[in-house]
Amino acid sequence: MKLYQGIGPNSYRVRIFMAEKGITLPMVNIDFFKGEHRAPDFLKLNSLGQIPVLELDDGTIITESVAICRYLEETHPEPPLFGTGAVSRAKVEMWNRRAELVIFATIGNVPLHSEEFFKDRLTQFPAFAETERQAVPKKWAWLDRELADGRPFLAGENFSIADITAGVCGWLGEAFGMEIPGTLENVKRWNERVRSRPSWNA
Amino acid sequence: MKLYQGIGPNSYRVRIFMAEKGITLPMVNIDFFKGEHRAPDFLKLNSLGQIPVLELDDGTIITESVAICRYLEETHPEPPLFGTGAVSRAKVEMWNRRAELVIFATIGNVPLHSEEFFKDRLTQFPAFAETERQAVPKKWAWLDRELADGRPFLAGENFSIADITAGVCGWLGEAFGMEIPGTLENVKRWNERVRSRPSWNA
Repeated sequence: MKLYQGIGPNSYRVRIFMAEKGITLPMVNIDFFKGEHRAPDFLKLNSLGQIPVLELDDGTIITESVAICRYLEETHPEPPLFGTGAVSRAKVEMWNRRAELVIFATIGNVPLHSEEFFKDRLTQFPAFAETERQAVPKKWAWLDRELADGRPFLAGENFSIADITAGVCGWLGEAFGMEIPGTLENVKRWNERVRSRPSWNA
Repeated sequence: MKLYQGIGPNSYRVRIFMAEKGITLPMVNIDFFKGEHRAPDFLKLNSLGQIPVLELDDGTIITESVAICRYLEETHPEPPLFGTGAVSRAKVEMWNRRAELVIFATIGNVPLHSEEFFKDRLTQFPAFAETERQAVPKKWAWLDRELADGRPFLAGENFSIADITAGVCGWLGEAFGMEIPGTLENVKRWNERVRSRPSWNA
């Protein structure tokens, strides 16, 4: 089994997830800047030209960071990062998706529609990037209101993949000049709690 | 337990999922055109003002269509629609996400950035809607190549939530003048196979 990965938020999500579970895997670094994600051999693994990709020993390919994490959860159940029991699993799914759809997508659109690097990947609309950039603080403010009940983690009492996703949103935003607004006390406390975990060095 | 739902692809996904499992639930219709998703009482259930929302008997709220489906899978395991075993579950997750991120997001951006109805929800970029509209056939063509191995369903031998998501993409595209290109034989066969299931009347 080996993991093809590199820079960027999605590989980072998987590395943090693995660190939380104490999983180590052989890794193959895919260098975007050298175009290795567009090499024919890599496109045979993932026709979308994206990392991360998990290759199992029998050649089975799993793409999409959350699908890779799901596989690792099934094969290494402890500590559970997708919840335990029907309500908890649904809440983790709900919060992981809210983090992705509300915050990650908004932050991600900024570099996607403004950075030189993505120019050949899509038709960029810099004005769209700008409205998304302006929307980011509102998204964090929404999360701050949601965390006003004082719970320690997004999906409740336990750290989960939803905290990894949302924490990586904070990290990604900072990389492109979009800090979490300092006035949002609940998000600030949650962000410090999550991102001080040793797994964040992964 | 009751389901707040209405028109739109995400409520439809949950209704199809329930029909596949033979689940019936009391439903509360939320009428977008009357602004019921913005009513204070509804915003207490889902601060994002989105449907569907599942309310459990103890008042627990689950939002996000896939999280609702995950809850129903846990409480009604048969027939399994999220896969069985580590590899199968990862493949279903992978294909559900590919359907969402590659096809659903592209189709969804078209009405979101061009329809009058969404004007107060975001800053619209009609030129972005147009590039997304033009990209849709390429996304289906990608899926057609992926299905060239002749497997009956997206994640393999068994029907899953990934087929519901991608099938609803076909339905949504048609609603906004983006038919699946008739030349894509593999997608065409898959689409007919999936959308002829009785659950599609849900």
